Amino acid sequence: MARYLPAELIKKKREGGALTADELRFLVEEFTATRLPDYQMSAFLMAVYFRGLDENETLELTECMLHSGHVVDFSDLSGFKVDKHSTGGVGDKTSLILGPIVAACGLRVPMISGRGLGHTGGTLDKLESIPGFNTQLSLEQFRQTVKKHGIALIGQTQEICPADKRLYALRDVTATVENLSLICASIMSKKLAEGIDGLVLDVKFGSGAFMKSTSEAEELARALMAIAKGYGKKVSALITNMDQPLGRYAGNALEVQECLEILRNEHGNDRLRNETRELSLQLAAQMLFLGGVGQTLTDSKAEALKVLQNGQALAKFEELCVAQSGRLQELPKAKHQLPVLASQSGVVQSMATETIGYLGLRLRAGRATVADVIEPTAGFEFHCKIGDRVEKGQPLITLYGSDSELLQEVQPLVAKCVPILEHVRQAEPLIWKELTL
Amino acid sequence: MARYLPAELIKKKREGGALTADELRFLVEEFTATRLPDYQMSAFLMAVYFRGLDENETLELTECMLHSGHVVDFSDLSGFKVDKHSTGGVGDKTSLILGPIVAACGLRVPMISGRGLGHTGGTLDKLESIPGFNTQLSLEQFRQTVKKHGIALIGQTQEICPADKRLYALRDVTATVENLSLICASIMSKKLAEGIDGLVLDVKFGSGAFMKSTSEAEELARALMAIAKGYGKKVSALITNMDQPLGRYAGNALEVQECLEILRNEHGNDRLRNETRELSLQLAAQMLFLGGVGQTLTDSKAEALKVLQNGQALAKFEELCVAQSGRLQELPKAKHQLPVLASQSGVVQSMATETIGYLGLRLRAGRATVADVIEPTAGFEFHCKIGDRVEKGQPLITLYGSDSELLQEVQPLVAKCVPILEHVRQAEPLIWKELTL
Repeated sequence: MARYLPAELIKKKREGGALTADELRFLVEEFTATRLPDYQMSAFLMAVYFRGLDENETLELTECMLHSGHVVDFSDLSGFKVDKHSTGGVGDKTSLILGPIVAACGLRVPMISGRGLGHTGGTLDKLESIPGFNTQLSLEQFRQTVKKHGIALIGQTQEICPADKRLYALRDVTATVENLSLICASIMSKKLAEGIDGLVLDVKFGSGAFMKSTSEAEELARALMAIAKGYGKKVSALITNMDQPLGRYAGNALEVQECLEILRNEHGNDRLRNETRELSLQLAAQMLFLGGVGQTLTDSKAEALKVLQNGQALAKFEELCVAQSGRLQELPKAKHQLPVLASQSGVVQSMATETIGYLGLRLRAGRATVADVIEPTAGFEFHCKIGDRVEKGQPLITLYGSDSELLQEVQPLVAKCVPILEHVRQAEPLIWKELTL
Repeated sequence: MARYLPAELIKKKREGGALTADELRFLVEEFTATRLPDYQMSAFLMAVYFRGLDENETLELTECMLHSGHVVDFSDLSGFKVDKHSTGGVGDKTSLILGPIVAACGLRVPMISGRGLGHTGGTLDKLESIPGFNTQLSLEQFRQTVKKHGIALIGQTQEICPADKRLYALRDVTATVENLSLICASIMSKKLAEGIDGLVLDVKFGSGAFMKSTSEAEELARALMAIAKGYGKKVSALITNMDQPLGRYAGNALEVQECLEILRNEHGNDRLRNETRELSLQLAAQMLFLGGVGQTLTDSKAEALKVLQNGQALAKFEELCVAQSGRLQELPKAKHQLPVLASQSGVVQSMATETIGYLGLRLRAGRATVADVIEPTAGFEFHCKIGDRVEKGQPLITLYGSDSELLQEVQPLVAKCVPILEHVRQAEPLIWKELTL
């Protein structure tokens, strides 16, 4: 005999009530054990969409999902364990730079990452463009790699938050993804399972982000931070602009290449690569500051810059690749390139970044369905930023890939994503706000 | 390849949009064919709970459910086909009186009824307290019975509105029952499947009804009438009081007995039996008026009264029982009775009618679960109405049944349902409002 009637709990939420910890645990546990049918959970989720979860409910849901699987135990490992989570964007490759920086500074960086979601890229897909790179370590191998090298970068395992996996799959097909509490509990349960002491959030807004406005992004950041705080974790957040792709490249091997150039201090004066470098340094500084490396954020950033400039961050990245069997020297290059040229002179008004992300899927830089195979060399090189003055015939974006017909097909669609007009357009700052607790 | 993405349609409703007829039909048809999973339909239903369906959507949903099964074809049968639908209450037995009255006046009465729902009684359960009475006719037998006798009273068949059956079962366990549009489409699809020309609604409000207020009841009545009108059916409604049980008895064989006494003109001066008789006559008058029997409602009521007083309605009821194999003379009587006595002198303030209905389930007058077996003789006799002055020790309600221990157990709970205080309480009229189109 179940201790609650599921329909009564659904009704309670439908009427705007708050479920007790025990009621919520009942629903999640019965669902995970497949004793609560999907149709009751999806009705509950839709009621949550309309009525929300309060802070206690959100914490309890996070707790249920966290403890539905394994939580990595780093209690035998000295040093501050810190990760970064980004809400996703196009060309968002900072993990590959800031992870090695922070590990080179002596903190532990246990990173469990995801694949591309929708129009956004995923760290796992980027790493897997390095031939041989193994992202499928067991949790014990993950633990040992962090212990030995200070950093490991792996994908979700079956042992991490199985309740979240089932719940997310159901939300995806029942139009119940877009609820702040559900999003927060899903993100935070997976991050907390890494066994971290601190977390830095990169919450993006704009045309290429899931949150379109700064206010939505800030609301999400604050909700995520509240959960981290509820668990006694150190946390801070940067609210950053995703109105246009980040840096010079978007596409898996292309982004690894950009990161390598930055780690090798070969970025030169290129302002697009410098943008990637700057955000990576700022996020790394946040991570270091949480972990006590540096008395002020300025100190922390100086530490980050030091290991970047002296090659220790590059060495850490190369060490990580060897540890996870990646052969960096074999990073593939695209067979074909095709530029998109400015059809008129004028000023770049905007970039339809989400559309560019989806056109990346058309180039096979990401998966439209789980069955799709990624072409690692496919992607975009960006030659301009919003507000730039361009001349007719000048390249705006170059398409990369192994299939020249596909490039031809996508080229005119990409051209539409970069409207050019005669009037001036102000550029927006990359980092909009810093949030600390 | 399905012509719509279900998650997109769920999202559309979630955002407050109106689905096109084709979109709604897609969802219902795919669901009925078990190609659309329950978990998507329940998420959709919860979105409908919050966002509602507009008039067009409600009509389309009714149409989908109606045509998911057979619609009785009475096109070869002359005469006006009319039914009555009640939203349910305690002691609500009018169908057994008004059906024979209207059939005796020459209209056709094809009645497909339900079983008890929650605390309310069901016409089918009442009929089945008559030994041998067969409510499980096929639709063709139903048609032939209406053709030959002018009336037939059967239960839902598998052929009628299968989509509504599946949908209702899902709503029941996902807290998505209480939505006006879903309620209306469910009721009306089943009534329209009877092949009727007209419908009279008895929409109840009060402590023993599903709708607690007159405004909710009127809203439901108007929504039901709008659908009937959309189908070109004649329709009217009475909004009636269910703050206390209707008439003298509640319980299956007890109610059949009360109806027989009224049909036999043996009700005498008993104001409780007269209440049942009056509501039955008024509803019958509405049905006759829709069918053109009588130039005014007053004429129609006079016709109803005539066939009731001259025994033609009784003869029609007896004919119906024979046609459906019921042996009226074997109607069972309870072995035990136990009165609930007034614990003090004073005025009856109210009756907890829903609770009385649920206590009826405890007496086995109805089913708490589908597996329960009904005791046909179990139920209540009411000796008082709200506003009555009673003396200490006077019987208020008598419990009937075959299990004296059960009566003992329920007796003190029933006593609590009839609070008596010293101050005067105004009695409310039985019929609150008449609605016509």
